Amino acid sequence: MVAALSARLAAPCTQSRVQQRPTRKQLAVRAVAAEAPSSTTGQPHGRVFNFSAGPAVLPLEVLEQAQADLLNWRGSGMSVMEMSHRGKEFQSIIDAAEADLRALLSIPDNYHVLFMQGGASTQFSAIPLNLAADGDAVDYIVTGSWSKKAAGEAKKYAKVNVAATGDNKSIPARDSWNLSADAKYVHYCDNETIQGVEFKGAPDVGGKVLIADMSSNFLSKPVDVSKYGLIYAGAQKNIGPAGVTIVIVRDDLIGNARPITPVMLDYKVQADDKSMYNTPPCWSIYIAGLVFAKMRADGGLAAALANNEKKAKILYDAIAGSNGFYNSPVDPAVRSLMNVPFTIPSNPDLEKEFIAQAAKQGMIQLKGHRSVGGMRASIYNSMPLEGVQQLAAFMQKFAAQHAK
Amino acid sequence: MVAALSARLAAPCTQSRVQQRPTRKQLAVRAVAAEAPSSTTGQPHGRVFNFSAGPAVLPLEVLEQAQADLLNWRGSGMSVMEMSHRGKEFQSIIDAAEADLRALLSIPDNYHVLFMQGGASTQFSAIPLNLAADGDAVDYIVTGSWSKKAAGEAKKYAKVNVAATGDNKSIPARDSWNLSADAKYVHYCDNETIQGVEFKGAPDVGGKVLIADMSSNFLSKPVDVSKYGLIYAGAQKNIGPAGVTIVIVRDDLIGNARPITPVMLDYKVQADDKSMYNTPPCWSIYIAGLVFAKMRADGGLAAALANNEKKAKILYDAIAGSNGFYNSPVDPAVRSLMNVPFTIPSNPDLEKEFIAQAAKQGMIQLKGHRSVGGMRASIYNSMPLEGVQQLAAFMQKFAAQHAK
Repeated sequence: MVAALSARLAAPCTQSRVQQRPTRKQLAVRAVAAEAPSSTTGQPHGRVFNFSAGPAVLPLEVLEQAQADLLNWRGSGMSVMEMSHRGKEFQSIIDAAEADLRALLSIPDNYHVLFMQGGASTQFSAIPLNLAADGDAVDYIVTGSWSKKAAGEAKKYAKVNVAATGDNKSIPARDSWNLSADAKYVHYCDNETIQGVEFKGAPDVGGKVLIADMSSNFLSKPVDVSKYGLIYAGAQKNIGPAGVTIVIVRDDLIGNARPITPVMLDYKVQADDKSMYNTPPCWSIYIAGLVFAKMRADGGLAAALANNEKKAKILYDAIAGSNGFYNSPVDPAVRSLMNVPFTIPSNPDLEKEFIAQAAKQGMIQLKGHRSVGGMRASIYNSMPLEGVQQLAAFMQKFAAQHAK
Repeated sequence: MVAALSARLAAPCTQSRVQQRPTRKQLAVRAVAAEAPSSTTGQPHGRVFNFSAGPAVLPLEVLEQAQADLLNWRGSGMSVMEMSHRGKEFQSIIDAAEADLRALLSIPDNYHVLFMQGGASTQFSAIPLNLAADGDAVDYIVTGSWSKKAAGEAKKYAKVNVAATGDNKSIPARDSWNLSADAKYVHYCDNETIQGVEFKGAPDVGGKVLIADMSSNFLSKPVDVSKYGLIYAGAQKNIGPAGVTIVIVRDDLIGNARPITPVMLDYKVQADDKSMYNTPPCWSIYIAGLVFAKMRADGGLAAALANNEKKAKILYDAIAGSNGFYNSPVDPAVRSLMNVPFTIPSNPDLEKEFIAQAAKQGMIQLKGHRSVGGMRASIYNSMPLEGVQQLAAFMQKFAAQHAK
């Protein structure tokens, strides 16, 4: 097993062609683990509470099942990683994943579900390429870093009108938006991962085609898909490992990609071949499928929302009840259930120590995004309640130790 | 463990919002395994010999290591699937993968190594977008299905000259190629997966920029990278699971992507951010990295080539020694070491039975590509010698049973 590989790495090298063959020790230390936490979280397998914004924590049950099946999936004699994507085993895996996703979101039949590659960042290009012609007007609502990036990329392909710009802490009032009369679509980001700003429901855009980047809150709450022309989400926040991006797109909107659209970004090509124009990101689809199945068994999106509200409340209450030691910069009406940025306004130097001490106790990845600083706790679906409880308890203790 | 998830799936549903919550049995049977082979291959863990053309067999040692580390990678307290790509743990993983790949191929310092998404099919677009301007001449050598697709996609972006077209069984003589005087590059496919046609060394293109799709023979043999401007390879043949595409590109060739290039396809953007402009396909990079490390410990590319020649010889000898029962359609001078198509010319109806019987004995995925029929054995680096030996023995027996 692992010993076999280690033993072989230690064997003497007789082959001269390989320059500087690494020793076993070199190979081992080159892939270095973070300093192990000095207190445990009490989680099984020595696992920490991982507040990373993405890639992010996955359900332990899903990881355990993937681990059990890794060498031989259900008697097939091979790993999911080794399966032909066109074989019946993988076909059953991707079909089940799609069926469970449709059930979770109650996706109407006239919408395609696509499993694409290249992240949300590829969708920033694919959306205007597929849904607008050169010079067409398209509206973008900018409420944070990701919607800003999406708008910037779209400028290559269409006439972008930024209809509203937020202040990174709130969402501009709907009646202040300058929507174009003739925009091919209105694009917004439902949850800004960096700023922690989240829409509470689909904005009303008067019947125009609505497009949402839901990368960091996908499947955290029920969504009325019928209000949207297209929803997209990178998997690596709430629903799986990196490598797959879900695109849910209404059928009448595809088929008009302009000639310069790369084949892999053409929604019609992807839909016609049910995401298998080429080899899809099979492992990521498989893990996402396990997550979808678990979510259905756990009560679907209403149950997920209830859990997420409960967890977020613990954290926002810890901030609110800190006598100003901690501050949440976001308008409470739109503060995210998924990403919670906060600061120590009286003494920003303490933020570094907060992050370091929390990490020592097994609460990791609490550093705020490099563009905003401070702290940020990402509390996606799979963050256990206990993780948020431990964090809140730590926050209280830290504040007590350091409050003036 | 697995029992926990199964038990929970069986729990009664009280939530009405989830339509038709699947029972545990439904979820289990919907993801169906192929009919289990009736004879075993003698491989550990009930594993078969998987001759799939891609995704394809991975080294058992690598899978075992990934399995052991799946819940908690080296004391980090999280899975590789859960790591922030910008954390030090994953940074060490991707750095080690790149370093090992550079060592294996002796990649000169003036080449970038990029870990991209979207498969080789995305590179079909990225190459002309990055390396040619609108209307520039580009030369394509078409020797099979993949080079044909690459040329077709490039027509969107440049003036494609198909300088040579093979007959799917051989490579046109170099002196018959009609290379353009002013082509920005010459593109060819080093190994055509479907036709089983493989170049034996870089073609001489008189100093022009040479670009190779090496998706299905990458790391199967030494390559002189300095002869190329760019080499690309989807991982899911020889080097990892689906989800990552390696691009090795000379530094002087990047930085001139035309304005319509999607940001995720821009080599300069990818190189400047060391493949982390956005979240890379972390798990696929990790597994590929384990494969690279193992290859270095096993003696690098010279050792790989020796093994591949040995395995291929067994198979081609089995065909040649069958008194015409089996036929290999490919010119022996260019027959692939990786993909071996063959037929039963006297009785094509027997091909279906051959495939079915082989599968029953644990040799699976021997069906030829749907566009060509017949059989095809893909014998990538990780196909054990024993697999090829068992296949050859089966071929002999089957021929003896059915020869007229």
